[in-house]
This record gives sequence, C-alpha cells and structure tokens, in this order.
Amino acid sequence: MKWAVISTWKMSYEGNLQASDILKNQGNAEEAVLRGIGIVEDDPSFHSVGYSGLPDIEGHVRMDAGFMHGRTLSFGAVGALEGFRSPVQVAHKLAERPTNNFLVGEGAAEYARKHGFEERDNLTDDSYQRYLEESGKLKPLSAYKGHDTVGFVALDRNGDLVSATSTSGLFLKDKGRLGDSPVIGCGFYADNEAGAAAATGLGEDIAKGVLCYQVCTLMKNGYSAQSAASQVVSDLTRSLTKRREHCDSISLICMDKEGNIGVGTNIPFAFVCADDTHPAQLYLAEPAEGDTRITLISATEISGID
Amino acid sequence: MKWAVISTWKMSYEGNLQASDILKNQGNAEEAVLRGIGIVEDDPSFHSVGYSGLPDIEGHVRMDAGFMHGRTLSFGAVGALEGFRSPVQVAHKLAERPTNNFLVGEGAAEYARKHGFEERDNLTDDSYQRYLEESGKLKPLSAYKGHDTVGFVALDRNGDLVSATSTSGLFLKDKGRLGDSPVIGCGFYADNEAGAAAATGLGEDIAKGVLCYQVCTLMKNGYSAQSAASQVVSDLTRSLTKRREHCDSISLICMDKEGNIGVGTNIPFAFVCADDTHPAQLYLAEPAEGDTRITLISATEISGID
Repeated sequence: MKWAVISTWKMSYEGNLQASDILKNQGNAEEAVLRGIGIVEDDPSFHSVGYSGLPDIEGHVRMDAGFMHGRTLSFGAVGALEGFRSPVQVAHKLAERPTNNFLVGEGAAEYARKHGFEERDNLTDDSYQRYLEESGKLKPLSAYKGHDTVGFVALDRNGDLVSATSTSGLFLKDKGRLGDSPVIGCGFYADNEAGAAAATGLGEDIAKGVLCYQVCTLMKNGYSAQSAASQVVSDLTRSLTKRREHCDSISLICMDKEGNIGVGTNIPFAFVCADDTHPAQLYLAEPAEGDTRITLISATEISGID
Repeated sequence: MKWAVISTWKMSYEGNLQASDILKNQGNAEEAVLRGIGIVEDDPSFHSVGYSGLPDIEGHVRMDAGFMHGRTLSFGAVGALEGFRSPVQVAHKLAERPTNNFLVGEGAAEYARKHGFEERDNLTDDSYQRYLEESGKLKPLSAYKGHDTVGFVALDRNGDLVSATSTSGLFLKDKGRLGDSPVIGCGFYADNEAGAAAATGLGEDIAKGVLCYQVCTLMKNGYSAQSAASQVVSDLTRSLTKRREHCDSISLICMDKEGNIGVGTNIPFAFVCADDTHPAQLYLAEPAEGDTRITLISATEISGID
C-alpha cells in the first residue's frame, strides 16, 4: 500500500527525509511524524519551534503542540508548555489516555515531568536577543514571516493517517496565549475515513474557520485534497477580509486517505512532500485566483526560500 | 425580525428568562447570552459552573469558557482560569482583540485582573466536601450527570447569532486540563451565515467530532437545525463506539440563522428555549434511533429533571 508524508516550510526538509525513511521501512505514521517534528524542535536555527523558539511577551518560550491519530480519533495536545525538549512527544503521550488529553501551562509541565520527558530551557541567547530587539516596538502581532508552526501529515502502509504540530507560537504573544496548533480541528485533524491536515499561519484567523476539520470534511465529501485545500483557504481569506477587513497569513497542508496531497495558502508558502514513488522534495505554493500554484524548487533556488 | 434563545440544562432556566427579556426589549444577543450564563455562574446550587463549581484533582475550581460572535467570527476563550466570578465575561472581553484571544492559566488570570474583572474563589464548603468524598475513589472520569457546561445560543433582531459557554470542567480533572467548552468549533461556534451551536458532555469525545463547527456546516448546507443536530450527535456516537468501543455523554444545542432550534443528544438532556412567539420553557430531549425525541416538561414533572 502507498505511504506519503507532507510537512510545512523548508525547515521540515530534513525531518521529512527521515520520516520518509521510516515509512518506507514499514514504520508507522505515528513514528514518522514524531521523528520529523522532533528534528525541527531540536534545531536552533529554526526560530519558531522548540529550541531557540520565539519568546512570548515575558521573554519565555512557551510552546504549543498537537497530535491526532486517524484510526481511533485519539488526540493529545499541550499549550503554553515551558521547559521541555519536545512538546509534540508530550502531546502524543497524552493521546493515549481516555480523558485529560489537552493540558496547558503548569499542569502540562507537571505531566511531562512525571512521565520523564526531557527538560530543556528553549530560550537561547539568540532567541533572547531577538526578544530584546522586538519587544519594545509597538506594532500589531502577525505570523512570523516564513517560519511558523511545523506540521506533519502522514499516511502509512497500514492506511493510518496521522497529523501533528509543534510551535513556540506567535512571537511576543501574551502569557498563556494558545494559537491554533494545539487546538483540534483548527491546527490539526486526522480521520482515516476522511483525511488529515495541519495548518500554519496566524492561529487566531485559522481558528475562526476551524480549517483542518473543514478541509477533512470536504475530502470526506469527495473533493480532491488539492481542491479542498485551495477552497477552504480562499473561502476563509475572502470571508475574513469581507467581515473584518483583514485576513493574516494562512497555509494548510492536507492528505486524503489514498495519500494524495493538497496545499492551500494565501501567501507564498514552502512545503515538503514525499511518497513511495517520489523522494522528499521542496515545493513552493502560491495563491492563484482561488486556486493554488505549486512549483518544484530546484537546488539552486532553495537558498531564497523560507 | 425574530429573536430566539436556547440554553443547556434545567439550570439555565432563570438565565434563559432574563436573556429572553433582553432580546424582547431590543437587546442584542451578546448581552443576552452573557446575562443568561452569568446567572448560572453566580448560583452555588449549580455544581458544574462558576461559584461552587466542581474542583479538579488538586481541589481547585479551574474554569473554562468560550464566546463567539457570528457577524465578525470574533471569538474569545479562557481555559483553566481560577479565581474569577465570571469566566464568560473574560472570554467575551478577549473577543474584542485582533490576536491573543485564547488565554489559559495564570496568563488568563493576569489578563482578567488587569481588566478589573471581579475576583472570587469559586471553591465553597459544599464543593470542597464533594471533592473530599470523591477524590479518593478510583474510577474513570466521565461527564457529571445532569449538570455540566452551561451553553447559550441566541439570535437577536439584528440577525446576529452568538454562542457562549462556561463550566468548571470535568470533575476531578487533571490540573490544566481543557475540555471542549473553551475550544472554538468543539464546544461553541457561531456564524451568521450558517448558524450557531454549543455543546455539553464529555469534552474529549465532543472534541473528536469538532461538533459545533460540524453542525453549523450542515445547517449552512441546507439541513434543518434539528436534523443537523440529530445527525451529528448520532454519527459521532456511532463512530466513537465503533472505533473506541465507547462514547460518553454528548449533547448539543444549535440554531439556524432564522432562529429555528435543533437539539441532539445521546442521553436524556434537558434544555430551555424561547423566542418571540413562545416564552422560556423547559424541554427534555432523548435519543430515538438516530433522531431526537423532544417533549415539553410540565411544571409537575420539573423536579425530577436535572
């Protein structure tokens, strides 16, 4: 049976390669997405996830993550979690429980500590410097250009779909602010009978359209993954622009139950995908009159892409 | 133009009467749902909301609330908020901001304090006694029978739909656990172009189906409010029973943009509704082979209903 994996932003390239290896070698989608995201969480050169993440208004790196398994609809999520190496691992562990799947703040940290997850202060000199430079400026908060939530969606050879996310959230967010990434339906969703999705961009705008659940509903109703993704992003962008005179950055990756991928975005957005017939490659998606234009990025162009 | 208001559980009766008065007298849906929920939050005889709410595993009353306005899709939410009189008022205030709309834990409390919201320890002798009696027992957590989230959905004469929720959450929940009530799409949703909804029951199961967004999607696609509500609850109950061998209590109230109401439930569930042609009355909804049987509760029967 087919396997496939898609992930957000250029920063996910190395993780996507490793996730592909897992899927190719009969590993399951759960392991694949956790490995892929873990690599991004550990790399300090990616500023919006895990180590060296973007601080909140108090200068703390407080992180959000979500995980969902499409066979059982089990999900786990953490919000405003501080001091751990891999928020997505904690979210994954929480998905095993019948209740108490979504934990925030100190409660999430106590759970992670009790279950032996590795602790790490994700504030580095580099991220603190970035905080000092920007925290005094008065300007509206917006999605951090070109670096944001890492999301992975994968289908394994057993036909299981999984979605997961990890982020340090909106740069200079308020203490305790949750974005879409730990919110089921908004930042992530997976259902073996419909499809799976993950989102990146301004969480508050993504949430208004409950975007990941919506795109899965369209796939369940027979839309192709690509047409579903294009449609939900362009509909939400239009709706928010009409009702609120503004819509911030929104990008979405999704996959149907056959492993076909879809991408919707209202900004230029890089993503990585691989399947049993194609190795991991970087693509650029751009909005194109309600549709999405997707181009393969060649090695010579890669340095110019976020 | 028509106005209408629907609310969860018998505990919402007095609040529904007052919300009806507001709507009748040209008040808006926002004021109406805040007043209705505020009355439940203040009444210590209702154990699952606000004052004298159900403690978490540490014996603290930590509360969740959500608010959404259907015209702008603005939403606000608080999770694991301790020490304030009206969580829904804080959620409502958060909905005014462009970002940072969903705050949890100490961050939510700091915001509420800074904005002058009235503080109150919601742990009473009565709720602490209930905690002492139950906290030593080993048993799986489940929705608290017959008392749970208060949810209000209202349509005002301007055609604006609003949804809001408030709860102390799952009895003996883990510290920092969020249920569906503060999660947009799961516990509440409102869109003037589709409909509005609020849910009550076991949050972790409601969330797996992103129930409030789903029912609004069906109404947008032309389903009547009642058929949409019956269908989403019976589909989710069936899906979770098939995939997980269990589905806990789930109940849902919704309203379309014309003010027609719908109720779906997998347990006996009392609700209150009123509109410009009918005063607030208590009804009982029961599941009936994929549909919902709704009966008016007469004054003589009321004492037997939760």
